[in-house]
Amino acid sequence: MTDLFWPGDERAGSHFSTPDFVGALLAVEEDWLGREISTPVDPDQLALAAESGGNPVIPLVRLLREQEPDVHRGLTSQDVVDSALMRMAAAAAVTLRRDVHAVAGRLAELAELHRDTAMVARTLTQHAVPTTFGFRVSAWLTAVLDADDDLARLAFPQQLGGAAGTRAALVELGREVPLGVPRWHTTRAPVTRIGDALAGVTDACARIANDVVVMSRPEIGELAEGTGGGSSTMPGKANPTLSVLVRRAALTTPQLAATLHLAAAQQVDDRADGGWHAEWATLRDLVRRTLVAASQTHDLVADLVVDTDRMAATLAAAGDTVLSEQRAMAAAAGHEPATAYLGDAAAHVDAVVARARQTLEETP
Amino acid sequence: MTDLFWPGDERAGSHFSTPDFVGALLAVEEDWLGREISTPVDPDQLALAAESGGNPVIPLVRLLREQEPDVHRGLTSQDVVDSALMRMAAAAAVTLRRDVHAVAGRLAELAELHRDTAMVARTLTQHAVPTTFGFRVSAWLTAVLDADDDLARLAFPQQLGGAAGTRAALVELGREVPLGVPRWHTTRAPVTRIGDALAGVTDACARIANDVVVMSRPEIGELAEGTGGGSSTMPGKANPTLSVLVRRAALTTPQLAATLHLAAAQQVDDRADGGWHAEWATLRDLVRRTLVAASQTHDLVADLVVDTDRMAATLAAAGDTVLSEQRAMAAAAGHEPATAYLGDAAAHVDAVVARARQTLEETP
Amino acid sequence: MTDLFWPGDERAGSHFSTPDFVGALLAVEEDWLGREISTPVDPDQLALAAESGGNPVIPLVRLLREQEPDVHRGLTSQDVVDSALMRMAAAAAVTLRRDVHAVAGRLAELAELHRDTAMVARTLTQHAVPTTFGFRVSAWLTAVLDADDDLARLAFPQQLGGAAGTRAALVELGREVPLGVPRWHTTRAPVTRIGDALAGVTDACARIANDVVVMSRPEIGELAEGTGGGSSTMPGKANPTLSVLVRRAALTTPQLAATLHLAAAQQVDDRADGGWHAEWATLRDLVRRTLVAASQTHDLVADLVVDTDRMAATLAAAGDTVLSEQRAMAAAAGHEPATAYLGDAAAHVDAVVARARQTLEETP
Amino acid sequence: MTDLFWPGDERAGSHFSTPDFVGALLAVEEDWLGREISTPVDPDQLALAAESGGNPVIPLVRLLREQEPDVHRGLTSQDVVDSALMRMAAAAAVTLRRDVHAVAGRLAELAELHRDTAMVARTLTQHAVPTTFGFRVSAWLTAVLDADDDLARLAFPQQLGGAAGTRAALVELGREVPLGVPRWHTTRAPVTRIGDALAGVTDACARIANDVVVMSRPEIGELAEGTGGGSSTMPGKANPTLSVLVRRAALTTPQLAATLHLAAAQQVDDRADGGWHAEWATLRDLVRRTLVAASQTHDLVADLVVDTDRMAATLAAAGDTVLSEQRAMAAAAGHEPATAYLGDAAAHVDAVVARARQTLEETP
Repeated sequence: MTDLFWPGDERAGSHFSTPDFVGALLAVEEDWLGREISTPVDPDQLALAAESGGNPVIPLVRLLREQEPDVHRGLTSQDVVDSALMRMAAAAAVTLRRDVHAVAGRLAELAELHRDTAMVARTLTQHAVPTTFGFRVSAWLTAVLDADDDLARLAFPQQLGGAAGTRAALVELGREVPLGVPRWHTTRAPVTRIGDALAGVTDACARIANDVVVMSRPEIGELAEGTGGGSSTMPGKANPTLSVLVRRAALTTPQLAATLHLAAAQQVDDRADGGWHAEWATLRDLVRRTLVAASQTHDLVADLVVDTDRMAATLAAAGDTVLSEQRAMAAAAGHEPATAYLGDAAAHVDAVVARARQTLEETP
Repeated sequence: MTDLFWPGDERAGSHFSTPDFVGALLAVEEDWLGREISTPVDPDQLALAAESGGNPVIPLVRLLREQEPDVHRGLTSQDVVDSALMRMAAAAAVTLRRDVHAVAGRLAELAELHRDTAMVARTLTQHAVPTTFGFRVSAWLTAVLDADDDLARLAFPQQLGGAAGTRAALVELGREVPLGVPRWHTTRAPVTRIGDALAGVTDACARIANDVVVMSRPEIGELAEGTGGGSSTMPGKANPTLSVLVRRAALTTPQLAATLHLAAAQQVDDRADGGWHAEWATLRDLVRRTLVAASQTHDLVADLVVDTDRMAATLAAAGDTVLSEQRAMAAAAGHEPATAYLGDAAAHVDAVVARARQTLEETP
Repeated sequence: MTDLFWPGDERAGSHFSTPDFVGALLAVEEDWLGREISTPVDPDQLALAAESGGNPVIPLVRLLREQEPDVHRGLTSQDVVDSALMRMAAAAAVTLRRDVHAVAGRLAELAELHRDTAMVARTLTQHAVPTTFGFRVSAWLTAVLDADDDLARLAFPQQLGGAAGTRAALVELGREVPLGVPRWHTTRAPVTRIGDALAGVTDACARIANDVVVMSRPEIGELAEGTGGGSSTMPGKANPTLSVLVRRAALTTPQLAATLHLAAAQQVDDRADGGWHAEWATLRDLVRRTLVAASQTHDLVADLVVDTDRMAATLAAAGDTVLSEQRAMAAAAGHEPATAYLGDAAAHVDAVVARARQTLEETP
Repeated sequence: MTDLFWPGDERAGSHFSTPDFVGALLAVEEDWLGREISTPVDPDQLALAAESGGNPVIPLVRLLREQEPDVHRGLTSQDVVDSALMRMAAAAAVTLRRDVHAVAGRLAELAELHRDTAMVARTLTQHAVPTTFGFRVSAWLTAVLDADDDLARLAFPQQLGGAAGTRAALVELGREVPLGVPRWHTTRAPVTRIGDALAGVTDACARIANDVVVMSRPEIGELAEGTGGGSSTMPGKANPTLSVLVRRAALTTPQLAATLHLAAAQQVDDRADGGWHAEWATLRDLVRRTLVAASQTHDLVADLVVDTDRMAATLAAAGDTVLSEQRAMAAAAGHEPATAYLGDAAAHVDAVVARARQTLEETP
């Protein structure tokens, strides 16, 4: 699966693809039925038949019952769609965290490697004080670990309530379902939490990409993507393509997460009249774009070219500007300026790297 | 083309589909080259090759040049992508306006038919004063005509600036392009205006669907969809599926239009570093969802079941409540209440219908 | 503090008001300085002086240093603004959770009281199967408890990094700050998490308000607000004003939360060039609107009028429609339909109420 | 009026301030009454009384009727609020266009002045081909003129429909209102169009600010703000504060415009149940932030420091890189590279400047 309108989409593999959705719907029905279903399902036919009832489960059940009359007994279509979405989301989260951890692992290496690589800090775009590239990378790493913490907390509950959540049909049929199995037809925190966490991942990826985009400008030249993208008309031009594509994603995901909240806030009655239906494609796009962005970010940091000489040169050229604060502080403290002016940057790098190592170890 | 995650997607036909995009890209290159291009293009291969340069034109040109070395001379990839998007958008707008006009035509009929069908007006969900169903339909029609006015104003400019907008390569090659042909690599009003107008269309469609969803509640029962959607578990249930799906769309399009503005606000340099790339899929989704919503709205109003008896009964039952304002006004004016209390509703209906007729006549 | 453009704003009290912000900024400086600051600060003067440096701390420090030359030593303005925002947010969260818990407490009562109050379930706006009002309230309560869980997880870290995060000035001045005190100048998860959790609260409030708006329609009449709002022209009209205002809030907060994500995704360098500045007013509006919505929701549920006769009448009138599923299930199971068809609704109500009680007990 | 959370807010003057809103509400009532109203109105009292009915007109009318029993006869509160909002918006648009035109005028001067100032074009952050600073400014100017075109098309209709749009009370009272006076209680294109146009203005302002932020980086140094903002800890640092604050605004306005669309898509019945109420503060924030951004952009371009030597030096240093396309084109065309490689940049600058002059002349 790929998307000509979203270069790199193939990195998301089959997650939330049409076959994946069909497979997840079938798996939910199979689990409920207690045996395999062998009816072949044509995804396009299913999609075409989905509109009249508003969702794909109605025609799917009609089809399956030709061979399996007992399929779907006691369920409502939302039970099946929601459970299928959560299966897909859970699988995608495993893949996503693998990529996020790969990014974190690489950033931990970079932070350690450049723990003492001096460069100029920039605030509001201007030269500020000295820093290290390792310290900068520790900020990237913090963003990634924060995002991973939110991913780690996600749950992917199945949905099981029947027509209106009361499980009346299940009881009528004599099927017991433990109370602990949740029902959340009209309370959508399980969905909005996923959306928020995914947006947090693209925030973190963009935070890295923004720096690469700035620092790979030729006038700065302290970073470069390992494999720059070409131009259709200018031979030899090398663009920071991965960074550009990651930034692209992060411009779109917050609004998708907001759509999930808006849909949650439209819940009404015992099952909603539009808010639910708006979630499916929104979640699909959020998941795939986040997977793509995380994977691209991994390539980006894996092959990142760091020009430490250029960093040193820029810092040296910045000269007095970046020492003005130190002089003021030393004067206030009544002593001569210390030779270095890096505060606890190195210790902070160590602490962030240690946090990363712990995260990476704890996760299976 | 259809989408299992967005029931009804097939209504958008091939607009902004992958083959449509490939075709539009080729058409732009052909126009520039001045002759047909016969190289077969595999869309999936193209999509897979698009990431390294960040857009599909770079691999496309590489492929085409195997047979046509002169293709793309003097253009930049953004010239081709933007021009292709605008070709597709222009074609989609023609289809969209056809559907919007069909909705308007049907609403004009309904408004006239029910010009004097009395019903209760509802404000903040409560019974207010008498009105007519024709008057209510005139509000729907106004929303649709306002949206159509915005569609009518759209332009779909080609893009032609070369590598950095200066047309240096074109001049070097001796190709003259009139100044009037615009270049808008980093000024994206042509894109944001389309997004805003499309969101306006789904606003209007939802405004209708919201009323159908309310008025087809069994306790109200004044309206019904012609063909209600079924349930996977409750035989005989008839849901207002089209309205639900239209409402779904309108929960998502404003955020997509916002994404286009955010992308416009990220423009920088002579060609942007992410803002441009975020537009393509966003515009695709906006266009297709709006096409689907307009088409569904047409079906909705074409087959709408109006229960005038129920409207009359509700109004009669509301009784004194809906006449309280009239009594206060008549007392203030010092006369007995008039027999009717419909203001200039009928004349307003006539005026809105006349506006619709004029729009429908003027458009080829 | 109140806002003519946002009726009910005064419910948010002084949280994130101008004096609150000034007070929080001063408190941060005082904590750092180690003693009280007595310099009077005129908030309007401060606001007017804030533009030239882009934030209010620069003129504040200039003012304070007239009397206290040692104020702010080693800090950067972002340390102070961020820490002040977090102080205000922490205080607002305490108030908010108090209201959220009051809502939960009242809903637990309502759920128990109406555990066996039969009514018709509605799905996609249409009558579905029997349910109880207590079961419906348990959904409201679940939404509120889910939102509260997210609030409970929030942290409100202080910010302490100095000019570029390295704490160079602090070390130069000889002030030690434990590594555990975080620095998050360019990693904004602490902010986006707050935004997401707040949006979750308005989602939950709206989920309740939506039902009240529907069920207080005169044709349904199963619920009513205790004190309906009046009309400027129709004597005697009673509108579900609180519900309307709660729904209003929930239409706006998801986009505000999205803005915080977009700002997070714009982080660059060692301190950002616009993303940071976009947060302050956005967070203020999010916090205040959520406080108002929660407080209004509390009034709404505290005074909610439940018409159990009307519920019973509607269910009786729905008749066969709501039993169609049961008949199908009983036939499938090969027995006569049971007398009731409420599944495990009552047990589920008990479980949700128990969850609420536990939450309310655990929180100080 | 100013806002400590939004530095620069005072630039928006009293537009959409509380007194402005009260004044506009009173002016609408006065116009309808046909004479001045002398009752003093306390804005805070009004705001506090607004919640119970959901809007400020209900308590306002109650207050005014103590002295003027005939005030508001036949109107509904939405007539007054909507008309007041449109009065305020119309006045704000006059101010805004004045600022936008001032920006355009200054950009036209800059474009002409630097029509032949050579610099390097940058695409996807990398050096591309030669361009001129005048050409770059012509892109800024195009963005501003496009935004102004959208502002010029805006209408600010009054609202006059009575309780449910039918003008029943007006007719009962014997007051004739021409049909041409619109009523748009539930069709909100007048509001969404304003929101979209305002977002278009901040898009254009940000497009300029983004370039300043990049080009004033010390490593590039081709532009600088006339008066850089200071730091609270680093003496001598000069930040591009105005650009930063303009970028801030553009991160927030698209979501506000989206909120207006979402509110429009929530319209239902004859007057809505929340969608309307969400508009007021949203429109206020959109208007004020856009006014601030336009005014800041004017200061930014008025005082912009252009370092033409640095531009020349960067272009010279870029050397062969920026000529690679030219060589390829000249080879394709079979001739030697021309001496310049600027295409029709100068002619394009002239055309854009001419467009600006025409706009500025046509507007009174």
